[in-house]
Amino acid sequence: MEQLQVKVAEEAEFRVAGEPRITSPQGFTASGLHVGIKRKRKDLGLIACEVPATAAAVYTMNTYQAAPLRVTREGLAMEGKMQAMIVNSGNANACTGARGLEDAKAMQREAAQWLNIPEHRVGVASTGVIGETLPMDRIQPGIPELVKQLDSAGHDSFCQSILTTDTRIKTVEVRLTVDGREVRVAGAAKGSGMIHPRMATMLAFINTDAAIEAPVLQSLLRQVTDETFNMITVDGDCSTNDMVSVMASGLAGNEPLTPDHPQWPAYYQAFSYVARELAQLIARDGEGATRLVEVVVTGGETREGARRAAKAVVGSSLVKTAVFGADPNWGRILTALGYSGARFHPDRVDLYIGSICVVHQGCPVSGVEELAKEALVQDPARIELNLNQGEAEATAWGCDLTYDYVRINASYRT
Amino acid sequence: MEQLQVKVAEEAEFRVAGEPRITSPQGFTASGLHVGIKRKRKDLGLIACEVPATAAAVYTMNTYQAAPLRVTREGLAMEGKMQAMIVNSGNANACTGARGLEDAKAMQREAAQWLNIPEHRVGVASTGVIGETLPMDRIQPGIPELVKQLDSAGHDSFCQSILTTDTRIKTVEVRLTVDGREVRVAGAAKGSGMIHPRMATMLAFINTDAAIEAPVLQSLLRQVTDETFNMITVDGDCSTNDMVSVMASGLAGNEPLTPDHPQWPAYYQAFSYVARELAQLIARDGEGATRLVEVVVTGGETREGARRAAKAVVGSSLVKTAVFGADPNWGRILTALGYSGARFHPDRVDLYIGSICVVHQGCPVSGVEELAKEALVQDPARIELNLNQGEAEATAWGCDLTYDYVRINASYRT
Repeated sequence: MEQLQVKVAEEAEFRVAGEPRITSPQGFTASGLHVGIKRKRKDLGLIACEVPATAAAVYTMNTYQAAPLRVTREGLAMEGKMQAMIVNSGNANACTGARGLEDAKAMQREAAQWLNIPEHRVGVASTGVIGETLPMDRIQPGIPELVKQLDSAGHDSFCQSILTTDTRIKTVEVRLTVDGREVRVAGAAKGSGMIHPRMATMLAFINTDAAIEAPVLQSLLRQVTDETFNMITVDGDCSTNDMVSVMASGLAGNEPLTPDHPQWPAYYQAFSYVARELAQLIARDGEGATRLVEVVVTGGETREGARRAAKAVVGSSLVKTAVFGADPNWGRILTALGYSGARFHPDRVDLYIGSICVVHQGCPVSGVEELAKEALVQDPARIELNLNQGEAEATAWGCDLTYDYVRINASYRT
Repeated sequence: MEQLQVKVAEEAEFRVAGEPRITSPQGFTASGLHVGIKRKRKDLGLIACEVPATAAAVYTMNTYQAAPLRVTREGLAMEGKMQAMIVNSGNANACTGARGLEDAKAMQREAAQWLNIPEHRVGVASTGVIGETLPMDRIQPGIPELVKQLDSAGHDSFCQSILTTDTRIKTVEVRLTVDGREVRVAGAAKGSGMIHPRMATMLAFINTDAAIEAPVLQSLLRQVTDETFNMITVDGDCSTNDMVSVMASGLAGNEPLTPDHPQWPAYYQAFSYVARELAQLIARDGEGATRLVEVVVTGGETREGARRAAKAVVGSSLVKTAVFGADPNWGRILTALGYSGARFHPDRVDLYIGSICVVHQGCPVSGVEELAKEALVQDPARIELNLNQGEAEATAWGCDLTYDYVRINASYRT
C-alpha cells in the first residue's frame, strides 16, 4: 500500500500521497506511447474519464495561441464537460496556421471515435518545437493503441509522454474527506523552458473525483493558477502552448462543492497544494537548473506590487546567476526589487537569504556573508523581502541560471 | 591627421571621426587614474570643461537610485550647467544609505575645490558592485592628481577608467557644420551587464561644443535616449546607476541651436548617431556576448507597440541562446512577439532573418533554413518583423546569451 503523509494546512487538513498517480481519483485511466514524434521517448498520451467530467481550463495570454488550445477551448465551451485529454510532446503545433488547426481537430476527432464519446469532450494539448506541422501519419495510427492501453496503471506512461526537456516526471496527489467521502485531487505537469506564465502556464493536468459544478471549478482553477503556476518563471519567455486543465469526475459522491460548502476551505487548500507543488516541480526542473529558488515578499502595499516584486527578483538573470554561483549578492536582489514597479521605501526594506538577515531597514548587515552563502546553496534557495509597507504578500518560484541552460537552448533543434 | 568618413543621413550630413575622442569638442579635457578601487585597472576618471557648459542628464527609473545620481541631479537643477564630471568604477555607491550620499558629495566637493569651480557644477557617477561603501581614503587623495592630469590627450585614460566587465572602450565622435562653424559631438560609454535601461541607461557621457540652451539640450537628450539607449538590453536587469549626461561648451560659436534653427535636423541626426552608436557598442559588448543582435519592427499599429515588440524579441533568453547557437528558430521569435503586448494579426506577420524571409504572412517559408542560419551568424545578427498593421517602427539592440554570461555573473564578486 502506498504511504500517506499528513499535511495540516492553516484551516484545513489533507493527506499527501507518497506515490501520486494521475489516475488515482475515481473514474480516471491513462496511457502513453512512443509513436515517433520524438526519436525514442514516449510522445503521445491520453487521460480518460469513465463519465463526462466537469471541466475547466486556463490558457496562455500569448497572442500566438497554439491550435490545440483553440480546439480545447471551443470544445469545453459547448457544455463545460471533458471526458478525455490527448497530449503529444515533441511538437507544439503552434504557428502552424490552418493546417495546424486541422491536425488538432483530427487528434480530437480520432480520439473521440475510438473512445466512443462526442468530439467536443476531448481536450487536446501539444508541446515541443514551434512552427512545424504534426506528423499526423504517425500520430493517427497510434490513437487506437493509446485508447486500448488506457488503464489505472497508465500513470507513469502518461507522465513520461508529455515531457520535453524535463529531466523527470512531475506529479502530485492529495486526499481529503468531504461529506464523509474520500476525495482525491491528482495532477501531472511538464516544463521546462519557455516558462513565464501569464494567466495560465505550462501543461498541467489535474484530475479529481470531487463533485463540483463547472463555473465553480473554473473560478477555483483561475484563482489557484494565479497564486501558483502564474508565479513561476524559468526564463521569462511566455509560451504559445501553456494550459492547465482539470477534470472532476464527481464519483467521490460528495455534495457538490461550492464556496458555501463547509469543506470548501479544505478542498481549496488541497487543490491549491497540488497546483503549487506542480508549479514548484516545474521551476525546480527548469532547463539547466541546479535548484529551486523561492522568493517571498511580505509587507507589500498591494498584492499586485508584492507579486511584481517577487517575480522581478526570481526572474532576474543576475539574481539567477548569483544563486548558481552561491554569491549572496544582495545588491542584485534590491536592484530587481527597485525596477519591479512595486512601491516601497528603500530605507524600510529587510532582506533575508534563508534565515539570515542581510539587509535591515535598508542597511547592509555586516559579518553575515558566509552564513548567507551557506543559505544560498540550500535547495530551495529562499529569499525573503519584507517591504514593511503594508500587509500584502506574494511568493514566486524560479531556478538558477546555469551553463546548461545555454547549452540546452543553443542546441535545441540542431 | 585622423581619418573622417562621410555619413549621409536622411536629411542631414555629418562626418564620423575615425579616431573619436571625448575631448575633441572645444573646451574639454579628461583624465583617468588607478587609485585602488579595482585591483589593477584604472578606476577614477574626470571630464572637465574650461567654461561652464550647458548640461542635461537622464537617470535610471529604478527606485534605488545610486547616491551619485542624486548629487548630480541636485547640482544640475541649480543653474542647468555642469563644468566637470567625476566618475569611479569598481563600486556603484548604490544602496549605501546616508554614508553613500556623503561620499558622493565628498567626491563632488573635492573635485570642485581642486578645479576651483562651484560644487554644484560637478557631476558624479559611479559603477560597479552594489552595496559596498566607497573607499574614500583611496579616492580622495587621487582627485588632485586627476585634476593635474587633465589634458585633451586624456581621452583614453578616461574611457578606460569607467569600465567594469566591459572588454573594450566605447567611444564615438561626429562633426558637422552649423552656421559655418564646425561643431563636434563626442561620447564615451560603459556597459556591460545589468543593462535594460528604462528612461535612461548605463553610464554615457556626451560632450559637444555646440551652443545650445539647457531646456533644448534636455529635451534633445530625452528624445534621443528614448530611441537609442532605452532600446538596448543585455540581461533585462535595469541598473541603479544608469545615467546619460551631456555637456555643451558653446565654444563652436554657432547661433544657439533650437528646433527652429535651419541646421537643427543636422545636429539632431549627428547627436542621435553618437547616442545610437554608443548604445550599440554597449549591446555588442554585453557580458559574454559574441555578437550584436538588431531587431527591427516595422508596420506596427503604434510606436509603443513596435517598441515593445522589438524589446521583447531582443530580450528573450530563448532568442538570445538561439542566436548564440546559430539556430534560426523563428518560433521563438514569434513567441516573444506574441507575449510582447503589441497588437497584431498573426496571419499578417512577415519575419526576416538577415535578408532571408522565413515567415511570410504568418506562414513559414520552406527551404530557407540553411540561408537563415548563415544570416544568423553575421554580426550584427539582424531580425526584422513586419507586422503589416500600420506605419510605426522601432529598433532594439541586444546580444546573444552565452556560457560566458553565466561564468561572468556566477563569479562576479567571488
